[in-house]
Amino acid sequence: MDKAELLAVARGECPADVVFRRGRLINVLSGEIHPADLAVAGGVVIGWGDYDGREVIDLDGAWLAPGLLDAHVHIESSLLGVGEFARAVAVHGTTGAFVDPHEVANVCGAAGVEYVLEAARRVPIDLYVNVPSCVPASPYDDPGAVLDAAAVADLLARDGVLGLAEMMNFPATIGGDPEVLAKLAAAGDRPRDGHAPGIRGRDVMAYSLAGPESDHECTSADEALERLRAGAYLFLREGSATRNLEALLPVLNEHNSRRLCFCCDDIQSGDLVAEGHLDRIVRKAIGLGIDPVTAVQMASLNTAERFRVDGRVGALAPGRSADLIVVDDLARFEVRDTWKAGRRIAANGQALFESPATDDSALRDSVRVAPLDDRAFELPWPGGPARVIEVYPELILTGSTTAEPKTAGGLLVSDPARDLLKAACLERHSATGKVGLGLVTGFKLTRGALASTVGHDSHNITVVGVTDAAMVRAVRAVVAAGGGLAVADDQRVLACLPLPLAGLMSDAPVHEVAAGCRELAEAARSLGTPLPDPFMTLSFVSLSVIPRLRLTPRGLVDVDRFELVGLHV
Amino acid sequence: MDKAELLAVARGECPADVVFRRGRLINVLSGEIHPADLAVAGGVVIGWGDYDGREVIDLDGAWLAPGLLDAHVHIESSLLGVGEFARAVAVHGTTGAFVDPHEVANVCGAAGVEYVLEAARRVPIDLYVNVPSCVPASPYDDPGAVLDAAAVADLLARDGVLGLAEMMNFPATIGGDPEVLAKLAAAGDRPRDGHAPGIRGRDVMAYSLAGPESDHECTSADEALERLRAGAYLFLREGSATRNLEALLPVLNEHNSRRLCFCCDDIQSGDLVAEGHLDRIVRKAIGLGIDPVTAVQMASLNTAERFRVDGRVGALAPGRSADLIVVDDLARFEVRDTWKAGRRIAANGQALFESPATDDSALRDSVRVAPLDDRAFELPWPGGPARVIEVYPELILTGSTTAEPKTAGGLLVSDPARDLLKAACLERHSATGKVGLGLVTGFKLTRGALASTVGHDSHNITVVGVTDAAMVRAVRAVVAAGGGLAVADDQRVLACLPLPLAGLMSDAPVHEVAAGCRELAEAARSLGTPLPDPFMTLSFVSLSVIPRLRLTPRGLVDVDRFELVGLHV
Repeated sequence: MDKAELLAVARGECPADVVFRRGRLINVLSGEIHPADLAVAGGVVIGWGDYDGREVIDLDGAWLAPGLLDAHVHIESSLLGVGEFARAVAVHGTTGAFVDPHEVANVCGAAGVEYVLEAARRVPIDLYVNVPSCVPASPYDDPGAVLDAAAVADLLARDGVLGLAEMMNFPATIGGDPEVLAKLAAAGDRPRDGHAPGIRGRDVMAYSLAGPESDHECTSADEALERLRAGAYLFLREGSATRNLEALLPVLNEHNSRRLCFCCDDIQSGDLVAEGHLDRIVRKAIGLGIDPVTAVQMASLNTAERFRVDGRVGALAPGRSADLIVVDDLARFEVRDTWKAGRRIAANGQALFESPATDDSALRDSVRVAPLDDRAFELPWPGGPARVIEVYPELILTGSTTAEPKTAGGLLVSDPARDLLKAACLERHSATGKVGLGLVTGFKLTRGALASTVGHDSHNITVVGVTDAAMVRAVRAVVAAGGGLAVADDQRVLACLPLPLAGLMSDAPVHEVAAGCRELAEAARSLGTPLPDPFMTLSFVSLSVIPRLRLTPRGLVDVDRFELVGLHV
Repeated sequence: MDKAELLAVARGECPADVVFRRGRLINVLSGEIHPADLAVAGGVVIGWGDYDGREVIDLDGAWLAPGLLDAHVHIESSLLGVGEFARAVAVHGTTGAFVDPHEVANVCGAAGVEYVLEAARRVPIDLYVNVPSCVPASPYDDPGAVLDAAAVADLLARDGVLGLAEMMNFPATIGGDPEVLAKLAAAGDRPRDGHAPGIRGRDVMAYSLAGPESDHECTSADEALERLRAGAYLFLREGSATRNLEALLPVLNEHNSRRLCFCCDDIQSGDLVAEGHLDRIVRKAIGLGIDPVTAVQMASLNTAERFRVDGRVGALAPGRSADLIVVDDLARFEVRDTWKAGRRIAANGQALFESPATDDSALRDSVRVAPLDDRAFELPWPGGPARVIEVYPELILTGSTTAEPKTAGGLLVSDPARDLLKAACLERHSATGKVGLGLVTGFKLTRGALASTVGHDSHNITVVGVTDAAMVRAVRAVVAAGGGLAVADDQRVLACLPLPLAGLMSDAPVHEVAAGCRELAEAARSLGTPLPDPFMTLSFVSLSVIPRLRLTPRGLVDVDRFELVGLHV
């Protein structure tokens, strides 16, 4: 329908496509909830009032709210393909998300971003793609691709690209590194997201001045207030592992709520199915005493304003996209129906669209490793103390300690009795055969091994285990699957979730992926680990930009000193 | 200074240009007032903290706020040229204004807009120019120029043009007139201002759907709430004549304050000098009980967000333009100093920059009238009732009544005893010689005449008087001045303020213009009129888009019926 036809509907001369009668509209613009008979035509909101519709839906007092927007998400963390992610979140009222394809870009480079762009065009929700700014995240990474400032500028020029995704290299940003400044400059006046945990004082000023406009890494209200003062939009993160909402809410006041948005950053498929997406965060915020209008604004209008798409989405008003949700109970905030551009896309927990076919060939066969010998992880040890990575439940931070490793026949071996397990990180993008070996404590496996092609941020293969045999078996399983997560013992592979898309994402439906994750967790638990999410913990063993000790294909990285260090102290 | 140099300042390695010590920063982003030693370098805010500055200013607890922004103003209404307007408002803390050069465009067309653009580039405050959307405002107008959709599109492409100015033709907008829709479409996603007094219900939905995003014409809270719900930014207008703030404030709540901005629309030079600009509105709002942070947000951040320039102005934070004001007393909100881009542009009531030289030749010699005979306003009258325009103090609306005119020798003459005065409207752009004659009541002149080349919206010459001789004298005075306002009696010209720029604006300094206006007012009062602002009233006699009866060069327009009508009933 063109504007003239829409105006005829607005004037009441032609019927609307749909009229939602007797709704209670959460009006994020006027900041109130008012009764409305909401008319929709041609995919946009016509308005409210005495309108006739070809279809009439009696809401009987149910609430109408704008479709929910996730301010920052890495789809890859759900282990879902783009289409399945869209199906999973649409059920929970999400009609838009601001996506950073950082992980797939680390594996596949621009081709990974292009896959997400192409898939985004084929799903009925809005997936706004921001260009990953830090590929690789660290000079000690061996990623599958590098996106320098020129590549970032090139991607920024693509159709469907919104802005620049989180600038994680905050030391270089504060320091004025020319390559970082060139990436920020390439984004010009377009949205530029930030990521700078723990900075304070002058560093906050410098980081903000350099260009990043948001942050989702604050963990205390003090830190959040300092960032807010200096101009950052605060993304309140509630993901699977990291949940900052409650700690940051003290910063909220009536004058600044517009600068706060909700995001999940990283969320697993199981949590999406069991708990929800933005609806879960709105529910939690309301439970914490936040006014429902404010909570809904943080999940809609605020995010739309932050990304400067508020002329089209983020509110229900004449001419804006008819992206709306129906909620039966305001406090429970359970989404009954989701509509996008005037079309019902989810109802009663079911997505009403299929995962679209998208050419994902560039993402397949991403696991390229040198042939893996049975003795690949053998390590002669002369005696003496070794560096040990300490992992903690639900923390991305690792610790660094030392211990005298156990040996057998002159070779270093795992010592499950002291929870000192062997770990390896295998370069898997270019079959260079690089393997870093180390020790880790915290997994508490009593037998077997866990292997994964998900390993932040370069996504090489990380494996931890009690025996070399189990470690080799687990690695071979993920390689054979074209990428994935595997649990093995000395005899067999106990569970394996294939992730054939870049070694990061499944091509299966969300419920299968969620079930696969549960099987993996059970298998891992059967090997003795008490970690709530051992594969998430495993995926951060290689993250060489966050303290303290990490394992990469080049060996151990002491992040505090930011240099490679030997296993032997 | 480039970004790397600014970062060195932010890191504390190089001194800032200026540090404002011991300030209380009205932080519109975090929504609080906090102590700050604010550092500025290279024209931008560096941040706050322990910074050294080449210049240090001890604020001793004075308040720092962002420079103030006027969301909608017609500079012409001040009778000042662009440079003098900038000087006048800078003194009051204004560092930016969103300008609709509607009046000068009605006289000079695109050349008028270009003059404003050119002058705007030469003043140190930001004058964002929006393209006039309704030139002429009415089909019964005889303007100096027409801006059709193609001309609007052409102007939108000019450097320095922001968006589309108030779409006043709301009936055609709601009706879906193709020319109006083409103008709105030409603006695309750029800001599009609205103007739709009194619409309700479905008309609100249709108008909003058509594209205008704001309104500054609401006069009641009910009306304002309806517009706000439907997505309009509300500009709370406090001009010289029309002051809506108090009536509209009931609409404000903690969830919607971001959608409210301050504007003055039309303000006279005398009021600028005596009362101020945005500072006056902030002061009034605080006096009405609005929290100072909210009031300042309405005069800064909200407006910047509405026009999507908030990445650069509207708040004080690292990297944003150092546009700031120093306020000694928060409740009185009197601006001591104004800084723009790190430079002090006004202090203690004095502008620190000169009115820039701008080529204004396109605006001069705009008064082109046919030779004016002494008997130009003679009107034979056969007897019988005539239509009479009723003017009211401080209202733009006029009434329509009828009366039996006084005659002398078969000619219609003014009858001051019954306050029935002759009025004329003379086409002055193309010397066509068109003259409309009519009768007006409300001016209450006992002798003499008032003439003006300011006559909304086409700015022909309007004159009202007790005798034809005084009317002719007054008109000749404004013609001789190349445009202006004049008061004459039967013997002489009592006062004349030349407005050589398009017949709308003076080329004199603000204080001279303000003094000239006072002289005009005194001269008019000496002729017996009790109207508080007789020239403003006169300027609306010809406004053929607002009810009820108006006088144009083509004769009387009955605005309710929207047609030309004869003087004889």
